[in-house]
Amino acid sequence: MITNIDHIAVIVADIDAALEFWRDALGLEVSRVEEVPAQEAEVAFLPLGQGEIELVRPTSDDSGAARFLAKRGAGMHHIALEVDDLEATLARLKAKGVRLINESPLEAAGGRRAAFVHPQSANGVLLELYESIPE
Amino acid sequence: MITNIDHIAVIVADIDAALEFWRDALGLEVSRVEEVPAQEAEVAFLPLGQGEIELVRPTSDDSGAARFLAKRGAGMHHIALEVDDLEATLARLKAKGVRLINESPLEAAGGRRAAFVHPQSANGVLLELYESIPE
Repeated sequence: MITNIDHIAVIVADIDAALEFWRDALGLEVSRVEEVPAQEAEVAFLPLGQGEIELVRPTSDDSGAARFLAKRGAGMHHIALEVDDLEATLARLKAKGVRLINESPLEAAGGRRAAFVHPQSANGVLLELYESIPE
Repeated sequence: MITNIDHIAVIVADIDAALEFWRDALGLEVSRVEEVPAQEAEVAFLPLGQGEIELVRPTSDDSGAARFLAKRGAGMHHIALEVDDLEATLARLKAKGVRLINESPLEAAGGRRAAFVHPQSANGVLLELYESIPE
């Protein structure tokens, strides 16, 4: 049901400065940099194998990512795993007593559906489950 | 030169308890659980697509992972990216002024070579570069 590592999200204070490391020094490609209003962030997408690294700069002061940056500074924020049937996965997690941040799917980037598991149930990891695009 | 997300390492206090979430609730497969003396840790390996999630339980009190667990609790510790030529990558990073924890490759699990980039140069991310196995 879980098929892939979809992305690793890194919160940064400045996209251009971050790209000096990830793109210019490390050599990763950048597919696009864009405002994502639903996330209150500007995001640089760096595809890598079957997944990608996302550099996320908060564009408001009151999102979870903005609070993370203010409190802890730049760093790894969450990981997203690809899942083929999000509702079935959420139902199973609930039945197992897992604490979910979103009990029903949210609309995420590109019209895909996603939901977050609470770090309390995932060894301190903020875990996003990201539904596959049907083939 | 960077070809893939190799693994995401999550520090945990108890492997069996962690597997109740990652294996039993989420449904990931576990390829093996073993002591890794070089890392002073017991590690559960959960392959996923081209990469894997590693659950790392420190077995000493003085490793970096043990200090992370004592100070911050369980959570994401580092990400590892696969690179085809580690020495060339380290040379390029050094030339760009990137701060490295290991200026020369270390021997990592399975005889593969690895080196860590300092989080100060990677937006707070502890980044491992992990050399591919030659085909």
